[in-house]
Amino acid sequence: MKNDLDLFRSIADELMKAEQEEAVLKPEAPENLFKRLNIELSDEALSDDEFGPILRDVVLNTPRTATRKFFNQLFGGRNSKASLGDLLAVLLNNSMYTYKVGGPMIGIEKELLNRSAELLGYPANADGTIAPGGSMTNLMAMLMARDKAQEEARTAGLYGARLSMYTSKESHYSIPKNAAFMGIGRDQVRYVDSDDKGRIRMDHLAELIEADRAAGFQPFLVIGTAGTTVMGAFDPMAEIAEICAKEKLWFHVDGAYCGSVIFSAKHRSLIAGAEKADSFSYNAHKMLGTPLSCSLILVKDRSWLHRSFSNDADYLYQTDGDDYNPGKTSLQCGRRNDALKFWTLWKSAGTKGLAEIVDRQFELANYALDYVTSNPDYRVYSFKDSLGICFNYKDVPADLLCNSLYEEGELMVGYGQFQGNEFVRLVSVNAGNDKSDIDRFFTQMEAFAHKLNVNHST
Amino acid sequence: MKNDLDLFRSIADELMKAEQEEAVLKPEAPENLFKRLNIELSDEALSDDEFGPILRDVVLNTPRTATRKFFNQLFGGRNSKASLGDLLAVLLNNSMYTYKVGGPMIGIEKELLNRSAELLGYPANADGTIAPGGSMTNLMAMLMARDKAQEEARTAGLYGARLSMYTSKESHYSIPKNAAFMGIGRDQVRYVDSDDKGRIRMDHLAELIEADRAAGFQPFLVIGTAGTTVMGAFDPMAEIAEICAKEKLWFHVDGAYCGSVIFSAKHRSLIAGAEKADSFSYNAHKMLGTPLSCSLILVKDRSWLHRSFSNDADYLYQTDGDDYNPGKTSLQCGRRNDALKFWTLWKSAGTKGLAEIVDRQFELANYALDYVTSNPDYRVYSFKDSLGICFNYKDVPADLLCNSLYEEGELMVGYGQFQGNEFVRLVSVNAGNDKSDIDRFFTQMEAFAHKLNVNHST
Repeated sequence: MKNDLDLFRSIADELMKAEQEEAVLKPEAPENLFKRLNIELSDEALSDDEFGPILRDVVLNTPRTATRKFFNQLFGGRNSKASLGDLLAVLLNNSMYTYKVGGPMIGIEKELLNRSAELLGYPANADGTIAPGGSMTNLMAMLMARDKAQEEARTAGLYGARLSMYTSKESHYSIPKNAAFMGIGRDQVRYVDSDDKGRIRMDHLAELIEADRAAGFQPFLVIGTAGTTVMGAFDPMAEIAEICAKEKLWFHVDGAYCGSVIFSAKHRSLIAGAEKADSFSYNAHKMLGTPLSCSLILVKDRSWLHRSFSNDADYLYQTDGDDYNPGKTSLQCGRRNDALKFWTLWKSAGTKGLAEIVDRQFELANYALDYVTSNPDYRVYSFKDSLGICFNYKDVPADLLCNSLYEEGELMVGYGQFQGNEFVRLVSVNAGNDKSDIDRFFTQMEAFAHKLNVNHST
Repeated sequence: MKNDLDLFRSIADELMKAEQEEAVLKPEAPENLFKRLNIELSDEALSDDEFGPILRDVVLNTPRTATRKFFNQLFGGRNSKASLGDLLAVLLNNSMYTYKVGGPMIGIEKELLNRSAELLGYPANADGTIAPGGSMTNLMAMLMARDKAQEEARTAGLYGARLSMYTSKESHYSIPKNAAFMGIGRDQVRYVDSDDKGRIRMDHLAELIEADRAAGFQPFLVIGTAGTTVMGAFDPMAEIAEICAKEKLWFHVDGAYCGSVIFSAKHRSLIAGAEKADSFSYNAHKMLGTPLSCSLILVKDRSWLHRSFSNDADYLYQTDGDDYNPGKTSLQCGRRNDALKFWTLWKSAGTKGLAEIVDRQFELANYALDYVTSNPDYRVYSFKDSLGICFNYKDVPADLLCNSLYEEGELMVGYGQFQGNEFVRLVSVNAGNDKSDIDRFFTQMEAFAHKLNVNHST
């Protein structure tokens, strides 16, 4: 292992140097790249002298998600302390089902969950777990909601039930995908219209529920989004909580993208009312910058978690109580330690440090928004307090601009759609960035767009 | 990051030294341990000088799954090259949905899947993906089977269908858990009796299918197990394939534990017929010793993978074809890079090196089996060619023995049950072990059991 730890360090140092020198790589056609990098597997072993250079090449030719020019998706940057924790998790290799094999990692996970629940404003009876990504924490919430609405779903199955659920048109695609998995079916997801800022329209929600009841459906779940994928909008959580209480529906907050506002006294009000939700999920690998993946789900009444996910397994649970054997409340059986990386970040930065990370991202986003709003060359589609800054520059089509920026190895940024418009979506979730990185983004993009337009017209 | 990489190395070196000196830790009561290790999170940041020693203590007090005294579950050991790959995956932090952000990692994953499919004997039209653990690859197989049987399941939901599925009593608990998730319901999982070696009884399987058809159920799926959890038994795959062909049922092989026999010319015959299955899963983090988790699912006809898991997402899939955007065939959206660690192992060891890992584990298991079989103080419950060696020593109850060994910090080993008997289950999946480690296990366990019996009777 010592030799491989040396090799790790030497490649890591080279990678970080390369990231400084060349923040974005010019892409190659996939098959060419795979061949050039000698990715092919064969029967014979390689000596370390043969293998080392191949591995180094692969690493240095991998898209650089940690640099200051990666604005492409809802993750990015490299938090040093979180990476440290995850590196150690690799070597320790505990499975998170029992205290017997997880030891202090079980306590670390519980501490993360308990303190998150406190910050959200959940009662002492709350509980939670960590699942592999926001799609899976949404799935867990949807399952608990289903199992509460249909007591027999887990045992007899869904036969005969006519369930229906509600979320905004701007919500994440994992919701219909999960509805298909669960036997509910995609057709039973009702898409509520959003207002001009991308937030769920409460009048339309009420209308859809009423229509379903009239048609003999059993509404069971509303999912509010804290940070919609494209617009970064926050649904009005207090209002959703109210209608869910009245209609006796499970209320889940999908905070995969922006649920981390619970750490910020300044921005927590964006989700006021979320503490009334039955469940709440957020991804520390998005706003907080841990390595992938670290998605937490909190449940107000722990009994629902146990009801939907517990399973006896004599061969596994042999010592310690259920409280210390979180396999009994998790989606999977064997489970990677995704807790340590978040704990190393939170423990070292303190809750105040996490608040600074959150506040900084809104500050950068609002800085970018100010720039595009005050510049007549931009048409702006997004709003204050969103981490996604959506715009078009002059008359350059967003897809052409983004894809060309990628193909020329200039910048990593994507495009999105909302209410019939397509636009560039600049995502500001890298807390390692500063205003000069935002300035540089616009300067570079504008110069590139100009060049592109010239080529386009000639 | 440089400072934290230095800290990582210094803690890693200390951990590996500690593992040599003390392979098993004596456990403490959870709350005491969490308090002693200062796991609590607080508002204020810690300096590196304060944080470093706390992290070091946590790491050194974590159960040691990589040592030669860990025989507890179906993972263990530390493969150096696989760990190297996973450490780099942490720093690179690519999400495995698109070529745009995954680059060569997408090719690496495809190569792992294609070569695995070849070894299994699948046709060129096969495909696959990596999901977070064996429970989730089982879930994916079960979903594809359901969606093939009930074309409307994904859209309209399961309403009206009366599906039933089949697996042996000795199969993994994720199967009924997943059936609950999917809306099928646990009650629709039929448990087929196993024979005296823990293999599914074909006559009983046929009987159950016939009875269900007569009762108006729609049988849709049989899951065969390559390495049952407790006994390590292999179901007769060719016979299951035959009945599935006749009855037109999806056939899935759950090879989470022992599907890695595909790498060994010597042991591949244990799953003869598995190439006829519609889907096949195996965990590289079990027999092959990669860090958690690395669970592959292969699907004979790729269209089923696409049908059950694809989802349009304009904001995400903006460049390159579907073949290079594996988010379209994965369970989740954002997905950790679990491919690199397996590739670094396979690329460096060659397919022949993987065969050696597999063969060595059977060799050690058969060595242990010989020992207990030839020693009259043991009652033996398991059979040749199983990685789980199941026995009782003298009249010491297995649960008492295993739990005491754990509590005294002697050895990590668990117990299991089969057909009314409870016994110690020694698991031999650490290819870093040699025969002297097996000898040492028995010597230590016997001495401890003797001490325990003396204390017990006085």
